[in-house]
Amino acid sequence: MSSTNQQIQQYLTKNEDKTRLLVSCPDQPGIVSSISKFLYEHEANIVESSQYTTDHVEGTFFLRIVFASNNIKDKETMLKRDFQSIADQFDMNWRMSFLHNLKKTAIFASKELHCLRELLYEWESGDLMTDISLVISNHETGRELVESFGIPFHYIPANKDIRNEVEAKQLELLEEYKIDLIVLARYMQILTPKFVATHPSSIINIHHSFLPAFIGASPHKRAYQRGVKLIGATSHYVTDDLDEGPIIEQDVIRVDHRNSVNDLKKKGRLIERSVLARAVKWEIEDRVLVHENKTIVF
Amino acid sequence: MSSTNQQIQQYLTKNEDKTRLLVSCPDQPGIVSSISKFLYEHEANIVESSQYTTDHVEGTFFLRIVFASNNIKDKETMLKRDFQSIADQFDMNWRMSFLHNLKKTAIFASKELHCLRELLYEWESGDLMTDISLVISNHETGRELVESFGIPFHYIPANKDIRNEVEAKQLELLEEYKIDLIVLARYMQILTPKFVATHPSSIINIHHSFLPAFIGASPHKRAYQRGVKLIGATSHYVTDDLDEGPIIEQDVIRVDHRNSVNDLKKKGRLIERSVLARAVKWEIEDRVLVHENKTIVF
Amino acid sequence: MSSTNQQIQQYLTKNEDKTRLLVSCPDQPGIVSSISKFLYEHEANIVESSQYTTDHVEGTFFLRIVFASNNIKDKETMLKRDFQSIADQFDMNWRMSFLHNLKKTAIFASKELHCLRELLYEWESGDLMTDISLVISNHETGRELVESFGIPFHYIPANKDIRNEVEAKQLELLEEYKIDLIVLARYMQILTPKFVATHPSSIINIHHSFLPAFIGASPHKRAYQRGVKLIGATSHYVTDDLDEGPIIEQDVIRVDHRNSVNDLKKKGRLIERSVLARAVKWEIEDRVLVHENKTIVF
Amino acid sequence: MSSTNQQIQQYLTKNEDKTRLLVSCPDQPGIVSSISKFLYEHEANIVESSQYTTDHVEGTFFLRIVFASNNIKDKETMLKRDFQSIADQFDMNWRMSFLHNLKKTAIFASKELHCLRELLYEWESGDLMTDISLVISNHETGRELVESFGIPFHYIPANKDIRNEVEAKQLELLEEYKIDLIVLARYMQILTPKFVATHPSSIINIHHSFLPAFIGASPHKRAYQRGVKLIGATSHYVTDDLDEGPIIEQDVIRVDHRNSVNDLKKKGRLIERSVLARAVKWEIEDRVLVHENKTIVF
Repeated sequence: MSSTNQQIQQYLTKNEDKTRLLVSCPDQPGIVSSISKFLYEHEANIVESSQYTTDHVEGTFFLRIVFASNNIKDKETMLKRDFQSIADQFDMNWRMSFLHNLKKTAIFASKELHCLRELLYEWESGDLMTDISLVISNHETGRELVESFGIPFHYIPANKDIRNEVEAKQLELLEEYKIDLIVLARYMQILTPKFVATHPSSIINIHHSFLPAFIGASPHKRAYQRGVKLIGATSHYVTDDLDEGPIIEQDVIRVDHRNSVNDLKKKGRLIERSVLARAVKWEIEDRVLVHENKTIVF
Repeated sequence: MSSTNQQIQQYLTKNEDKTRLLVSCPDQPGIVSSISKFLYEHEANIVESSQYTTDHVEGTFFLRIVFASNNIKDKETMLKRDFQSIADQFDMNWRMSFLHNLKKTAIFASKELHCLRELLYEWESGDLMTDISLVISNHETGRELVESFGIPFHYIPANKDIRNEVEAKQLELLEEYKIDLIVLARYMQILTPKFVATHPSSIINIHHSFLPAFIGASPHKRAYQRGVKLIGATSHYVTDDLDEGPIIEQDVIRVDHRNSVNDLKKKGRLIERSVLARAVKWEIEDRVLVHENKTIVF
Repeated sequence: MSSTNQQIQQYLTKNEDKTRLLVSCPDQPGIVSSISKFLYEHEANIVESSQYTTDHVEGTFFLRIVFASNNIKDKETMLKRDFQSIADQFDMNWRMSFLHNLKKTAIFASKELHCLRELLYEWESGDLMTDISLVISNHETGRELVESFGIPFHYIPANKDIRNEVEAKQLELLEEYKIDLIVLARYMQILTPKFVATHPSSIINIHHSFLPAFIGASPHKRAYQRGVKLIGATSHYVTDDLDEGPIIEQDVIRVDHRNSVNDLKKKGRLIERSVLARAVKWEIEDRVLVHENKTIVF
Repeated sequence: MSSTNQQIQQYLTKNEDKTRLLVSCPDQPGIVSSISKFLYEHEANIVESSQYTTDHVEGTFFLRIVFASNNIKDKETMLKRDFQSIADQFDMNWRMSFLHNLKKTAIFASKELHCLRELLYEWESGDLMTDISLVISNHETGRELVESFGIPFHYIPANKDIRNEVEAKQLELLEEYKIDLIVLARYMQILTPKFVATHPSSIINIHHSFLPAFIGASPHKRAYQRGVKLIGATSHYVTDDLDEGPIIEQDVIRVDHRNSVNDLKKKGRLIERSVLARAVKWEIEDRVLVHENKTIVF
């Protein structure tokens, strides 16, 4: 946990007894009752909870609970084991995040640094409670910036002809650092299905358009040609279909007839960085559940 | 329920088995567990729930649950009676809203009709699930509009010299129609503490500024003089302190140097109506809890 | 001018001496100098002006000037005639709008009334300085609303099998009322190229998506399926290519996982009406210039 | 001009023949005509112009023109001298900014670096076309950051007891670097009237509230206590009245009941930096005119 900072240490101290529980399962009576009984019996107090059930005939139930419990480190194994029997009963997808275990994040970057910078500063300001374990880039451009934060920077040149070798090196590093979350901060290289499969629902990308408008390459140029009055940015999980993964967050910014393609790129950077930072923050706070090709953001 | 419309009837049919439970109380372990056990034992299924606890040493717990249960009309008395013992145990403020009982709303209006109109149209479009039982105005201006919706319109001239007589007449009507919620849609008359006390946390006002900026009279003129770049609107519960009640919703709209005071008034109307409509919608959906002088909006 | 209201009369009185001049032409030195000399010699005082030149090698020049001049009614013919020689010199597209001549607008509507209503209320509040001469609809739904404003309502049933007959009737009415501007307020019928050609850059539509996303039918359903976090509305001039005309204005509103397709439709209505109202207002104020497939909005 | 970067050099090369002319004066016929004749005679081509006249009986006229002319460096003295006679005739306040002369900016900072960082990155990305000549701070915190951009960092400890000595040192530096614009990037120290008088309408501050709400100290704490649903940031020129100077730009961000005072501070930083960056950008682009206590932003 070399790269955590002082603000994060304070946060950990304050929240070391807290745990987040995420659940999704087919809806049926008794789910909440069973879970709250479970928590009560394990002397856990609910700090915050959100619940939502889809409005279909056979609905799906989604829950996010933050609970606090003394000496939680000693109870982790027991909590997980005991919860599994509830999970079996209701056919749940679930995970528990113990807050004293900071998630480990890798950022993939390229030449354009605005998103990388935003993440590093949000992190330094104590707004991203994660261990940014390393940055991998196919350009040397960001090295000085990254290393000034005390974070390891790994330069791995990449292009489509050497994709497999590149990904092998990347995966080795991800394994070495035990990475939970990968953030593509304008990385601009396509990942193979094989790579994506290694981190399901754990790779977050930022696309520089308001998807599904201007899917693919050169969205700002096409936005300019179409004469739109707003341009957007979209953060989504990476799946095998380019720019088609579940959307986590989107935003737009106003443009007008005076703006050139280059102006759109500049304005776009303002929302790309804030949209990506919000999406990453929510992921780190275990607020996002994926259901079919969509997200529930609690 | 004379004035409900077709969209509302469909809504009622679809939701007649649903109930909303709102709770606030001092935080302590076991609250959620007790409530969910209560619901499970009463064969109620949780459709949606949100919970929040203030982050103080002696925290306050807030909960909103929507639950569904067959033949709920037959169980109302029992549910309320049985829940009271939980409420006693945890020192709760609470209420249950049975969705088949539409809330009854009175709108107070004056000469400016934009907020009244917005509410009527939102209502007609099926976005405000309430019985707008009557409109009371100190001007005849809105009569034709209101009556075109089949809603009774009561003209009660008002000024500060006859405030007590006016309020007596208003209170008589409110009682006659069994009103749950009063919406001041740019009513522009001050209510006495005596009147306010008859409907605690049940009178919603729209103020034509971004409170606490430009509290009191002529906010647009003062905003113009100050040269602000955004003007606002604020919807809040009415308390004895003018424009000081708990804020439910606020929004702003951009203005610039070309805008006269009159332009600010026109632009202001666009957000006054949408801010008030959102606040009323949330109140009708039992999303708003008042705590000290602030609101929790689930 | 039967259908103008009191606010518009006040506006006309105040602005009867004003004229708007719109110009676009290939850029070259001396354009502004010639125009301002022309205005000075005709005793016209510039009240407001905006100018923009595209940043290309062979740029295009765009100008909007509002000028005031006494007894302008007596000078119209002379002003136009004298300006033509400048226009010839610089190869200009141009028009002069004399403010005492209210533009005549026809609104085309269908069953969904939210956009029609917004326009009528903006108009009644004095925010749309136009003569709404008539409303044409393929449903009787809006008749009562429209006639309550003293505006003629023409019911012309429409479907794709009788398109030619329908358009013939519509064109007859447009000619009879000497219509300058046609607003499609969720009219939902496709217009033939022949019809569109009769009113170039004078037909404004509202599309219920953030174009070019979800072009075509059922945008809200597709937005729901894609799981977007914002939905939009786009107002554009109608051309022969469906939903491909020059965009005048766009806006978005936030949605989340709890919103059904029907919720998206409801939320969408809030921005459809405001986006269309802004676009129509700008068109009526002669703020919009079309260049290639884009708009300059001054 | 040591600290300019590559993007700025490209910009200068492209725009070296351009000049911005700002004018304000009592309105009367013939102003635009005289100016455009002047430009035509000096072989200057208008690239962009905006004009606005206040709508009062005795109106004030405001103009911003960007014009291009070959070999402008040789004509500066002549242009200024010749324009002075027009200025005299119409009693104008005016200035010409020759784009090849980059404005020189000093940033004053303190411990909180988010605004300083934003300005540095906007500058590095080529979005702030100025020479950031130096940073003055009363804390050493930002030194490493600032020097990493090759910009001189001057540490001048400050507190209210040594205000005069501090300002004397600051003024000496400002003079040495020939500073045109001072940006207070959360500097948090009050400037004396004497200091302010040295740079009229040339000191830009960012206040961490939506002025005039929460004027003065601790705005986030007070916003929290009032329970507002939006918090703001305001950028304004510094005058002798604290937080009362002409407002250049404002923006807001949504908050809710879950946000602590500390959360408000964090969210506030997101808009403080973007609001300040926009205000500084507009000032550098000569878009802002001060009139009475308000701004015209072209």
